[in-house]
Amino acid sequence: MKKVRIGLIGTGYIGRCHAIAYAQAPTVFPLEAKLELEYLAEITPELAAQKAKEFGFNRSTAHWQDVVNDPNVDVIDICTPNFLHKDIALAAIAKGKHVYSEKPLALTARDAKEMYEAAQQAGVLTLVGFNYIKNPTTQLAREIIANGEIGEVVHFYGTHNEDYLANPNTPLDWHCIKEKAGLGALGDLAAHIVQMSQYLLGSDIKQVIGDKETVIKQRPNPQNLTELLAVENEDQATALVRFENGCMGTIETSRIACGRKMGLSYVITGTKGTLTYTQERMAELKLYLHDDDPARQGFKTLLTGPLHPDYKNFCVSAGHGIGFNDQKTVEIRDLVNGIASGKAMYPDFEEGFKVSRILDAIALSCEQKRWVEVDEVA
Amino acid sequence: MKKVRIGLIGTGYIGRCHAIAYAQAPTVFPLEAKLELEYLAEITPELAAQKAKEFGFNRSTAHWQDVVNDPNVDVIDICTPNFLHKDIALAAIAKGKHVYSEKPLALTARDAKEMYEAAQQAGVLTLVGFNYIKNPTTQLAREIIANGEIGEVVHFYGTHNEDYLANPNTPLDWHCIKEKAGLGALGDLAAHIVQMSQYLLGSDIKQVIGDKETVIKQRPNPQNLTELLAVENEDQATALVRFENGCMGTIETSRIACGRKMGLSYVITGTKGTLTYTQERMAELKLYLHDDDPARQGFKTLLTGPLHPDYKNFCVSAGHGIGFNDQKTVEIRDLVNGIASGKAMYPDFEEGFKVSRILDAIALSCEQKRWVEVDEVA
Amino acid sequence: MKKVRIGLIGTGYIGRCHAIAYAQAPTVFPLEAKLELEYLAEITPELAAQKAKEFGFNRSTAHWQDVVNDPNVDVIDICTPNFLHKDIALAAIAKGKHVYSEKPLALTARDAKEMYEAAQQAGVLTLVGFNYIKNPTTQLAREIIANGEIGEVVHFYGTHNEDYLANPNTPLDWHCIKEKAGLGALGDLAAHIVQMSQYLLGSDIKQVIGDKETVIKQRPNPQNLTELLAVENEDQATALVRFENGCMGTIETSRIACGRKMGLSYVITGTKGTLTYTQERMAELKLYLHDDDPARQGFKTLLTGPLHPDYKNFCVSAGHGIGFNDQKTVEIRDLVNGIASGKAMYPDFEEGFKVSRILDAIALSCEQKRWVEVDEVA
Amino acid sequence: MKKVRIGLIGTGYIGRCHAIAYAQAPTVFPLEAKLELEYLAEITPELAAQKAKEFGFNRSTAHWQDVVNDPNVDVIDICTPNFLHKDIALAAIAKGKHVYSEKPLALTARDAKEMYEAAQQAGVLTLVGFNYIKNPTTQLAREIIANGEIGEVVHFYGTHNEDYLANPNTPLDWHCIKEKAGLGALGDLAAHIVQMSQYLLGSDIKQVIGDKETVIKQRPNPQNLTELLAVENEDQATALVRFENGCMGTIETSRIACGRKMGLSYVITGTKGTLTYTQERMAELKLYLHDDDPARQGFKTLLTGPLHPDYKNFCVSAGHGIGFNDQKTVEIRDLVNGIASGKAMYPDFEEGFKVSRILDAIALSCEQKRWVEVDEVA
Repeated sequence: MKKVRIGLIGTGYIGRCHAIAYAQAPTVFPLEAKLELEYLAEITPELAAQKAKEFGFNRSTAHWQDVVNDPNVDVIDICTPNFLHKDIALAAIAKGKHVYSEKPLALTARDAKEMYEAAQQAGVLTLVGFNYIKNPTTQLAREIIANGEIGEVVHFYGTHNEDYLANPNTPLDWHCIKEKAGLGALGDLAAHIVQMSQYLLGSDIKQVIGDKETVIKQRPNPQNLTELLAVENEDQATALVRFENGCMGTIETSRIACGRKMGLSYVITGTKGTLTYTQERMAELKLYLHDDDPARQGFKTLLTGPLHPDYKNFCVSAGHGIGFNDQKTVEIRDLVNGIASGKAMYPDFEEGFKVSRILDAIALSCEQKRWVEVDEVA
Repeated sequence: MKKVRIGLIGTGYIGRCHAIAYAQAPTVFPLEAKLELEYLAEITPELAAQKAKEFGFNRSTAHWQDVVNDPNVDVIDICTPNFLHKDIALAAIAKGKHVYSEKPLALTARDAKEMYEAAQQAGVLTLVGFNYIKNPTTQLAREIIANGEIGEVVHFYGTHNEDYLANPNTPLDWHCIKEKAGLGALGDLAAHIVQMSQYLLGSDIKQVIGDKETVIKQRPNPQNLTELLAVENEDQATALVRFENGCMGTIETSRIACGRKMGLSYVITGTKGTLTYTQERMAELKLYLHDDDPARQGFKTLLTGPLHPDYKNFCVSAGHGIGFNDQKTVEIRDLVNGIASGKAMYPDFEEGFKVSRILDAIALSCEQKRWVEVDEVA
Repeated sequence: MKKVRIGLIGTGYIGRCHAIAYAQAPTVFPLEAKLELEYLAEITPELAAQKAKEFGFNRSTAHWQDVVNDPNVDVIDICTPNFLHKDIALAAIAKGKHVYSEKPLALTARDAKEMYEAAQQAGVLTLVGFNYIKNPTTQLAREIIANGEIGEVVHFYGTHNEDYLANPNTPLDWHCIKEKAGLGALGDLAAHIVQMSQYLLGSDIKQVIGDKETVIKQRPNPQNLTELLAVENEDQATALVRFENGCMGTIETSRIACGRKMGLSYVITGTKGTLTYTQERMAELKLYLHDDDPARQGFKTLLTGPLHPDYKNFCVSAGHGIGFNDQKTVEIRDLVNGIASGKAMYPDFEEGFKVSRILDAIALSCEQKRWVEVDEVA
Repeated sequence: MKKVRIGLIGTGYIGRCHAIAYAQAPTVFPLEAKLELEYLAEITPELAAQKAKEFGFNRSTAHWQDVVNDPNVDVIDICTPNFLHKDIALAAIAKGKHVYSEKPLALTARDAKEMYEAAQQAGVLTLVGFNYIKNPTTQLAREIIANGEIGEVVHFYGTHNEDYLANPNTPLDWHCIKEKAGLGALGDLAAHIVQMSQYLLGSDIKQVIGDKETVIKQRPNPQNLTELLAVENEDQATALVRFENGCMGTIETSRIACGRKMGLSYVITGTKGTLTYTQERMAELKLYLHDDDPARQGFKTLLTGPLHPDYKNFCVSAGHGIGFNDQKTVEIRDLVNGIASGKAMYPDFEEGFKVSRILDAIALSCEQKRWVEVDEVA
């Protein structure tokens, strides 16, 4: 049996999530290759060693370059802060490694394009961690749309709202600094719903016009709470969009939306029905079909179960529930089987680039207060 | 005790709703004047007589001019198709009558302005039937916002979606003809959520950019179902808006939104909390307060009750429920007490004009694909 | 056209609700007789006169006997405290009047039986104010069950929980005194869900075993808050029941159920589907059908609309909402048309007696800690 | 570092769930011992070998006795059909092994008692797989109750309803045969809600009276679908209960409850508030507090997050969701740390026995149609 040997760089919030998924994936899914947790990098040798032990990796280092250069590593898994994605990915690609990167792919569409083109030229496989589309419930939504069950989609409304910066007293962190994060809520959150909209509709966004605001303009300096520092990117943004297939859409995002803990949601209206979903109830999809008996019409709450995509590997009873990390486990299955088979994975760097380009186009449209064609950017 | 003598013109869908409200208002509320159902007009003498009997009016006629000219009528209540609002209102104002008109005030902002200015010059009182803002639940939302309980409002998301034209086989009716209806979903539905947004925030919309689509471009001729006629206005529209106070907003409307039977809804995000509401659950308001104990945060479902505005007149127990017609009953209370006291009512023709102007601005922005200042229009 | 002349006795909480319904019924429904608000009694002449004016009654008195004896009154409408129901009803029946009584019909099953038998012998028509079954949504539930859409019903779970006495500092009132109220939560609240269960299933309860508790054993004397008086009846009760058709059931009731403002609810399980409802969302019925495609199964939320019983008279658009008083308006329609046609109404004194008997049987089963046959009682 | 060496017997539905939890536990939690997946038994050598590979176990066998007798195994994990629990547990205890058994502990309370007493005498540690109480959301409910936040609990309503046998054409399987399963829905499902009620209230059930029904009395023989075989145990049951602390309760269970996929739910009413939960929305707890401002009262939807028990080990952001297997992962943490520290775990065989005794008492009360003291049984 083939091996897929992982080199993990970064072990924070999302790196740990990858580690949990690596741990459970081989038991949950019949993988097409043996998953080997080979090498791990963190910023100090001590932290790297500790995390390697916690996560079950064979070796560790304080230099990400070691991982990239290691001949026993097949895939570079990038879980670092966003501003490092590009350098690591380009180095890995240069070494002929496959690359599995967290989102957003890069701080700008231009950088994302460079990464995508490098990967394409090198012929390496890529995957971007838009894990929410791996949820069986959202896969089911995609299936319902692709089947034509709700007719032709005529409107997409999507949000990714959270409230992690709702409190004005929360000190400034890297999310608020352009050089570290690029965009604000658009880059950190809207990336997910923009990508998900394309996945669900099977069509790309081509025109956008947005509006945005930095509501909390200053925040305490974390090193000196009495000093206020400028917030450099948007707290919230909204955009009207048009997809290639002509469908209208609205995207909303905020990092100060009080009460939204995981406010990734969509309402998809078709000519024959409607689907609604919120990630805070990640096992439920609401489906309305207009051709039902008029006296018995209504939104039906589907609980994801073994008859829906990828659910039965977690549990053979319906309605028992999938968790956040399980989505990443599906992604790891796609990664391992993709590398093993040599087939392109989805969503790859091309999709990651497309998303970055849309986000940059939205930002540009906000500044210039006009509709922007997505391909004007990068 | 004073009398307020009503002259009702039109007895269809909304006229009948007025009649139900007139019937129950004096029992529900302590009115400041005696409500007299004086005169009623319909298109034939027979229908007028029948409706007068059903609705409890003293007299009837087949000529709306009779009602307008009658010395025993104090208020002209206009429940006709939209395209007649203007002529009737102007005639009534010319006679010094107070005017209570259904929404939208007119087919265009220009017409609405003429009506508003005529009423202002004549010194008559006016009221426009935006009845959903009279629901105790939405009054409560207004109170919570005005109290500052959710801080400063930073985002408004509102919809008025229905599905009454979702079926492409539904024959063309007056809603789809510009000369009869003016705008499509914008005029018929979005009028409510636009007005409600201004009521809730206490601030007017000043800039807009929209997008719209006539999804079902042709419909059967009701006289000859094998023939297809063009639909002349939009099935759905979306707009980004900015309020005078700087708050960002999004407005969505559709008359083909499968599954939405009364999809008037709002999500209002403040710096300290969030409110959400949908008219399909008209007795519930969800409130999130960010300053709650972090381990006990969440959206709280308030059921409207006697401690909230105008509810206790219907029932002294909480959670027992208000119905559609009860909103109109509150409006009738405002009408009778307003006329009795001679004080300006809300929302009046000025507000009706403002709403028309915003809707026209959205339509213009869709056509010109650019941000439009509301005061560019009319 | 015939007249139905009403004599109303009592104008408190529920009397006022009747008055609102009387006011709107002739506009909402095409009635088979002219409704005449003839005579009204309250405890003082002044209050009676004031209420007659407010409610639009022709005449008033401080003696309920005047109303009962009046030749121009056809129907005695009893809205007094429960302990007076019997005397008034028997006096009215003796005078050959039809009787419309609020629930519970009497303080004991024995009294209720006497009233039912008197009415039967006198050949007068009767109606008991179990208004919640008049809600279009619950009528729809009845229709779905009667159609066999959920198969054979195998389990009924019903509650009527409220929290009006949840606060232990609320002073003792008549609800807590046996001589005034009879049973506690059972009589005041469970009466509704017990009756509704029989209406929905089309089968009577025949065996019961219950449990109950007076949780708050003493309350302040309203005349002297420092003194504590004994609460004489139950705060909460639960019963297992069996219907005539063999169906199992559970009934729960409480007047101290924190958070329940109108906690009348049911879950009805059949061999082919399930229905769920709560009165706090009185326009929604949830329906599950087991024969749906297994990959598309789920509870569907039906919003009541014009295709459902009695809704279109209030509004011709679906999902616009029915309120608490509208249920009573349907009941008044049944009253007027029933009296006009001389046909038996539902639920009548026989049903009111059956409900009292079941409640007494539950109380007996609690005391004797054993299953009780309903016909052991009274 | 100590080792905890697992011997797993049975790899079906629940055995596989254990395997997934074993795989992820060391990455999710900092365990106090090294978890060693040592030995696995299945009914054939081939299946055992295959499952050992899939689940990552070192060795395998076709004889459960080999696992029980193996000196390198510390804990016997019993995931076999219910009727084998007793023999395996007693054999394991006789060898001084710790035992981790799935629920229900045994087919009868008598057997469960024998197992509990044997473990007690041998001084081995035990754990029963009532995994739903390990959900952070239900742990939070327990914490809220224990804190007194909802006052003194006065009523418990709990269900465990599913619909896996709702279709009458589903062939007879072991669940329906007394010798294999013992009780029907009571044993398979109600075991969970009965145990959970005791966990949540911190008080044991002491008196019960129930009712039950085998609704579908015959099912097709799986070997010959044209033949019908008798169903030997109940499809649904309901019981009134009293806890040691006097609290009233109701327990409902069904395996034919159309639409319930994971219908484990509770409504817990206290003197100062109420909690509601359903496992189908396993990340939400609804909390009502009666002392809130009366004009702002309502049920608050808490989304489980890092401030709640055991959540942050899965994800540091609130509302991101816990899945079914994650509950088992918490249970494995308890197992490993319990064995490592030598401290009693919860819920242990004593609790498993108590639950069996309550279920047998309910069955007895149904047959004898009377209240039964739980300690009358076994």
